[in-house]
Amino acid sequence: MSFEFIVRHTDRRSRVGEFSTPHGIVETPAFMAVGTLATVKALDPDDLRAMGAQMILANAYHLHLRPGDDVIRDLGGLHRFMGWDGPILTDSGGFQVFSLATLRTVDEKGVEFRSHIDGSRRVFTPESVMRIQRNLGADVIMQFDHVIPGQSNETTARDASERSIRWLARCAREFQTLTSEDDGTRPRQALFPIIQGGVHEHLRCEAVAAARAAGDWLGFAIGGLSVGEAKEEMYRILEVVDDSLPADRPRYLMGVGFPEDLVEGVRRGVDLFDCVAPTRMGRNGTVFTTDGRLNIKRAEYRLDPRPLDEGCKCAACSRFSRAYVRHLFVSDEILGLRLLSLHNVHFLVSLMSRARRALADGSFDAWSREWLARYHSRTQVPSA
Amino acid sequence: MSFEFIVRHTDRRSRVGEFSTPHGIVETPAFMAVGTLATVKALDPDDLRAMGAQMILANAYHLHLRPGDDVIRDLGGLHRFMGWDGPILTDSGGFQVFSLATLRTVDEKGVEFRSHIDGSRRVFTPESVMRIQRNLGADVIMQFDHVIPGQSNETTARDASERSIRWLARCAREFQTLTSEDDGTRPRQALFPIIQGGVHEHLRCEAVAAARAAGDWLGFAIGGLSVGEAKEEMYRILEVVDDSLPADRPRYLMGVGFPEDLVEGVRRGVDLFDCVAPTRMGRNGTVFTTDGRLNIKRAEYRLDPRPLDEGCKCAACSRFSRAYVRHLFVSDEILGLRLLSLHNVHFLVSLMSRARRALADGSFDAWSREWLARYHSRTQVPSA
Repeated sequence: MSFEFIVRHTDRRSRVGEFSTPHGIVETPAFMAVGTLATVKALDPDDLRAMGAQMILANAYHLHLRPGDDVIRDLGGLHRFMGWDGPILTDSGGFQVFSLATLRTVDEKGVEFRSHIDGSRRVFTPESVMRIQRNLGADVIMQFDHVIPGQSNETTARDASERSIRWLARCAREFQTLTSEDDGTRPRQALFPIIQGGVHEHLRCEAVAAARAAGDWLGFAIGGLSVGEAKEEMYRILEVVDDSLPADRPRYLMGVGFPEDLVEGVRRGVDLFDCVAPTRMGRNGTVFTTDGRLNIKRAEYRLDPRPLDEGCKCAACSRFSRAYVRHLFVSDEILGLRLLSLHNVHFLVSLMSRARRALADGSFDAWSREWLARYHSRTQVPSA
Repeated sequence: MSFEFIVRHTDRRSRVGEFSTPHGIVETPAFMAVGTLATVKALDPDDLRAMGAQMILANAYHLHLRPGDDVIRDLGGLHRFMGWDGPILTDSGGFQVFSLATLRTVDEKGVEFRSHIDGSRRVFTPESVMRIQRNLGADVIMQFDHVIPGQSNETTARDASERSIRWLARCAREFQTLTSEDDGTRPRQALFPIIQGGVHEHLRCEAVAAARAAGDWLGFAIGGLSVGEAKEEMYRILEVVDDSLPADRPRYLMGVGFPEDLVEGVRRGVDLFDCVAPTRMGRNGTVFTTDGRLNIKRAEYRLDPRPLDEGCKCAACSRFSRAYVRHLFVSDEILGLRLLSLHNVHFLVSLMSRARRALADGSFDAWSREWLARYHSRTQVPSA
């Protein structure tokens, strides 16, 4: 199967569609669970399939360091390595180079840094990052970009965004070279540009225009959001980007998010989301529910026979009480981490499934307003 | 269904049979996975069902402290609490009181100790331990016994064994009182005596005789083995106990064990085994294979595309390479702990299934000798 994106219905800015990849179709809007190190933390690929997860993420920076992208290539690529035959997207490592690695120096050529694991010296260039992602073999791969702190001033943001565009051209050339060497047995991959520009509307517009001028992309990623700016700023930028991106290509909002961010994102034309929040917060005892978040550690759940979220059909809620999950969590039992991660990822996956149904039957605007009102109605537990 | 034990075939000391409980039939010989805190560490009840696990264990001492046996009773009992509708056996906590708890004083009444979790003062008596196990509601429960170090001298061993017999009588009286109050809705339970006596053959014989004189038990547990004595001593004691126990009751060898111990135990008339080894060793990176143990951390497995154990049908081996499991393990990924635990428990569960087939078709003696020879043929990795 080759790449294709079909928009089935639209409702204001929102769309429901189908994104075809060599490893299957992704019904959009969709939440992608994050498997940084070729495993969605605490979950089994069977858990993901059972909950209806369609496409998952892995990370080029992390897998380059451990176990090595060459190891994964030699073992048949990421799909076989991690036992996931559905679509996979890899992030380029741009974000990790700038957030995890140390002693970083950036120049036009690329980024020199030290590994956060063993301090070893490494260099990432647009070209090397294409080769890494080629070795991994995900269906969708990201350009290498220059990531800056969320609240950077306009000069810094412009400089990084323009460099990212120049790096996009180099990524595209290297990707072209790599794929022209194909013997026909390697999976086809789609390269997405990453739109940067911070919270500066005109920089975002310029980035979209420059990316569009640089090629006919199969999709676009939106980077540099949910990095400390106010939610209202993120929503405003999403609308600006929605206005300037082509309607017939999927948009992937990187590293977002929380349940409410997904609904707000779909309202602003986003098709794909990813975030470590559901698994990370699960491992901290935070539970997503339709009435906001709850913290399973609280004593009030000690004898609570109800499921984590009433009405939820996940493999945790259909079998276990809050009291049991709390017992597992306070006793440091691994099953507790798995059940909480499973529930939270299922929550986002099924939230997007519900959004697709509402989009298909024309009720999305009303449904999403109601959903947001209920989610925000209870006092929320501060995030863990 | 009420309790019943039917021996289908025998071969020298070995037997294949069916142990019926209120929550289903256990085909014996069988390995029971240990779910100390109402969860088999790192596994899901669905994993256990899928691998053919029949009966699992939980622990009265641990569950009394966390979350409280009263909590579990109020939530409908252990089966419902932990989502396991098959047979469950609880250990009485005798072993834990003597191995985990601190500031212990023993007298004829019982044991006073401090919780290993919060130092709180507790008293276990034969009567209170019956009430705890009644609250938990497992199918098979254990008497409260006086456990001593493995290499104790004869005087100490005799003293503890005789006290355990006196406590057995008190357990039986309390159990009778509790069950006579039944309204018919509570699950029926079987109380097993625990045969003690250390490595002293005549003490073991006296313990069996005294236990048999004290009641008509639905099964017998053999305690105080695999606690530091030489393997040959354990095997000798098992033969002595086999000679004196009634043939028409199941025998449960407590806390044993390793793959080779299971085969040697079945050769000496044991029907039920339990041990934390498969999950604990799995969490340390040790893998059971038909050629002995291997340690997944070793660099030689970095690019190894083979499953953990070739020919194994478990949910880890049927999907993942040693290279992937090693990557998960060295990266501290939770899925690695689950896959290794899953494989090791599956290894023991299917080993007993294979033993039953050999017993049924009359080939057990030859099969077990061959199996042991192959298992011992390779230099083994020291246990983790």
